[in-house]
Amino acid sequence: MTMVTVKKLYREDKAFYGQKVQVSGWVRTLRASNAFGFIELNDGTFFKNLQVVFDTKLNNFKDISKLPISSSIKVSGTIVETPEAKQPFEIHAETVEVEGLSSADYPLQKKRHTFEYLRTIAHLRPRSNAFSAVFRVRSVAAYAIHKFFQERDFVYTHTPIITASDAEGAGEMFHVTTLDIANPPKTKEGTIDFSEDFFSKSANLTVSGQLNAECYALAFRNVYTFGPTFRAENSNTARHAAEFWMIEPEIAFADLKDDMALAEDMLKYVIKYVINECPEELEFFNSFIDKTLLERLNHVVNSEFGKVTYTEAVEMLKKSGKQFDYPVEWGIDLQTEHERYLTEELFKKPVFVTDYPKEIKAFYMRMNEDGKTVAAMDCLVPGVGEIIGGSQREERLDILEKRMEELGLEKEDYWWYLELRKFGGTKHAGFGLGFERLIMYVTGMQNIRDVIPFPRTPNTAEF
Amino acid sequence: MTMVTVKKLYREDKAFYGQKVQVSGWVRTLRASNAFGFIELNDGTFFKNLQVVFDTKLNNFKDISKLPISSSIKVSGTIVETPEAKQPFEIHAETVEVEGLSSADYPLQKKRHTFEYLRTIAHLRPRSNAFSAVFRVRSVAAYAIHKFFQERDFVYTHTPIITASDAEGAGEMFHVTTLDIANPPKTKEGTIDFSEDFFSKSANLTVSGQLNAECYALAFRNVYTFGPTFRAENSNTARHAAEFWMIEPEIAFADLKDDMALAEDMLKYVIKYVINECPEELEFFNSFIDKTLLERLNHVVNSEFGKVTYTEAVEMLKKSGKQFDYPVEWGIDLQTEHERYLTEELFKKPVFVTDYPKEIKAFYMRMNEDGKTVAAMDCLVPGVGEIIGGSQREERLDILEKRMEELGLEKEDYWWYLELRKFGGTKHAGFGLGFERLIMYVTGMQNIRDVIPFPRTPNTAEF
Repeated sequence: MTMVTVKKLYREDKAFYGQKVQVSGWVRTLRASNAFGFIELNDGTFFKNLQVVFDTKLNNFKDISKLPISSSIKVSGTIVETPEAKQPFEIHAETVEVEGLSSADYPLQKKRHTFEYLRTIAHLRPRSNAFSAVFRVRSVAAYAIHKFFQERDFVYTHTPIITASDAEGAGEMFHVTTLDIANPPKTKEGTIDFSEDFFSKSANLTVSGQLNAECYALAFRNVYTFGPTFRAENSNTARHAAEFWMIEPEIAFADLKDDMALAEDMLKYVIKYVINECPEELEFFNSFIDKTLLERLNHVVNSEFGKVTYTEAVEMLKKSGKQFDYPVEWGIDLQTEHERYLTEELFKKPVFVTDYPKEIKAFYMRMNEDGKTVAAMDCLVPGVGEIIGGSQREERLDILEKRMEELGLEKEDYWWYLELRKFGGTKHAGFGLGFERLIMYVTGMQNIRDVIPFPRTPNTAEF
Repeated sequence: MTMVTVKKLYREDKAFYGQKVQVSGWVRTLRASNAFGFIELNDGTFFKNLQVVFDTKLNNFKDISKLPISSSIKVSGTIVETPEAKQPFEIHAETVEVEGLSSADYPLQKKRHTFEYLRTIAHLRPRSNAFSAVFRVRSVAAYAIHKFFQERDFVYTHTPIITASDAEGAGEMFHVTTLDIANPPKTKEGTIDFSEDFFSKSANLTVSGQLNAECYALAFRNVYTFGPTFRAENSNTARHAAEFWMIEPEIAFADLKDDMALAEDMLKYVIKYVINECPEELEFFNSFIDKTLLERLNHVVNSEFGKVTYTEAVEMLKKSGKQFDYPVEWGIDLQTEHERYLTEELFKKPVFVTDYPKEIKAFYMRMNEDGKTVAAMDCLVPGVGEIIGGSQREERLDILEKRMEELGLEKEDYWWYLELRKFGGTKHAGFGLGFERLIMYVTGMQNIRDVIPFPRTPNTAEF
């Protein structure tokens, strides 16, 4: 008898009608009378369950009738088409063997639980419908990212997680140390003697792999990173986590236009891939999490993204007559309310806002002719606001050095970054996509804690 | 005129003969006379260079003739077949435009450099032949890992990097903290007050995602991790880094046999994929790094891996008459010399050693009937020794708890791990593959510092 997965049964259903097969999985629900019973079996390979029908022909009928939810079982039986039923087929069991009995205090009983509660049982929540869907989509989307870039010959570059440099000052950093914090070695002057630390200097967790990725783009032309990044900000919001994954492509011989084209292609590719590979999961999200989800995703895939400069966007927002909590003036950092109004009300589709004031952007962004704005772009999408931020990088050594001086950055700390401009620099550009933001976007989930298997946030590092 | 990549030119060469195209890239070498010149152009997309032929028809002939190595240029011209030459074709330039002039002190001149020296210019070394090959293979192998598991419906699971638990005591850990190390808050008792730290407790960088992956295997059946892991051991060897990437699949309803079959399939798949996708790179390694490389890789792909128990292996080693530095006795942890002798001399192919003494293996490995050994496996390959370590996990709650007591582990610290056994546990198994070990194996590179873009080792966190 063949051991098959529930996914295979659903995907090739007709091939199995009338066939004897073996399946294994976990009991999601069970109801039984004196004569027969039904088990909804989930085997982890597929969002949907397989209905197991059993009756008193089983020699362990009584035990099986009382199986606690979440017990793991092996079932042998025949796949039977069920044209009248909700599900297309079921399995008529000949034997049901218990592999692991669950306990009556299993916390994921049939009744609805809040997402807040489910976070306290993060080791079990992937067994629920919502989280099995979220984390399968997360996996498929991660693969789509790799597939997109690898099909285009991008080189996947593992930039370092531990770093002794502060990169771009993008955020508060976590210290990484092997010093005894209770009793650290001191210098003669009484400061911490980091020469005794593992790396002989103070080290942190990375906030971005971009500067390292630029080194590789200037060797391989097109590269991308996909790895964890960290923020030690004490922000307890639904959109911030201390540890999250980021995708950062970097392309050489390319300008801001190429960068936007790449971002648009990538987003559409990944969303299409998830739509094709996870129809059951998206259907679930569309029914139970966000009724506009599928419409929104299909709209993104089929729209040509809009483009507007920051200066134009500010004008449009001011002219709109809309009252914002945070007033709009040229020079401000756009807030989520502004971003969402732009993409949802004014453009009614994803839109790139370009050419931001240099004051609100990072030192490495390429200065425009006007001397006031830089070649930056943010991609805004309906329902979320900013999902991608990128820029063309300053490749002109003198202008870059001048900008660093203005901002008080030490050139010595960036010697290798500056050398990239000295030894055959080229126009180049890149962007960052927060992977969790993308997963929230394609699932409709509202809290970043619910799209990370074991989230790390202020005061929380359980599991 | 079409802008094409050098990879496309090589892969579809005949299609471009006689065609006008545009290419861009970096000057690897240049020689010129008064009448004409040759540039070896590398555009980052392909291991090999494109030969650019130019002559005095260029209005900037003199400038181009003196271009420093590593300058970036754009070339327009015609692709011409060269049946008598080493390379199949070249481009006859009509225009050569300089995008970024390099400097005369560019450190990667034509002459050979030691790998040690190249580590000090990690931002530039991917522009050399050896490292462009290493890091392209690294990218392709990473993708092959994802492809292998995704094609088999494994769920890619991002296990946490920051952890408050010590997992399996697999190694020394890095502390992660936002406390002011120079002046940390203290409790009344005078110890560090970690309740003031970011996570309200002491936190570390992960040494393994396995325990978390087990949670997901018991929901999704088949999962894998692929992410960075850390060791704070002060080992300055060619095989140890403080930060490295690991792949950890975990499979439910599966035993040690299934685990070995998966490991063998995966290794063969990844090696085959690299052989197919990176023939130029492997040819290079085979010529310049390890003359036995291709023979060895092909042998692995075509061998059925051997299997031997630890007890049998110890007998074989004792009977071999071979003098080892470290004498062989039942109970010892096999050393690299023993492992290599087994796989290279006794089996002459990859071999799984199984069923190790429980004393030298981790607490979570499944106890065998004999009460002395556990269902562990190490995969040994010629030329390296151990490349994979795995085991069937102890799914029996009582036996697992007893083992933890013996080893003095606190059950409270593992409450969620133990609950996996309480709520529908199943037989399950998994293994860990150090990604850098794999890259060293498929490239022949001998130092782990040379297969990580920006390596982190004791006293080293530059770039």
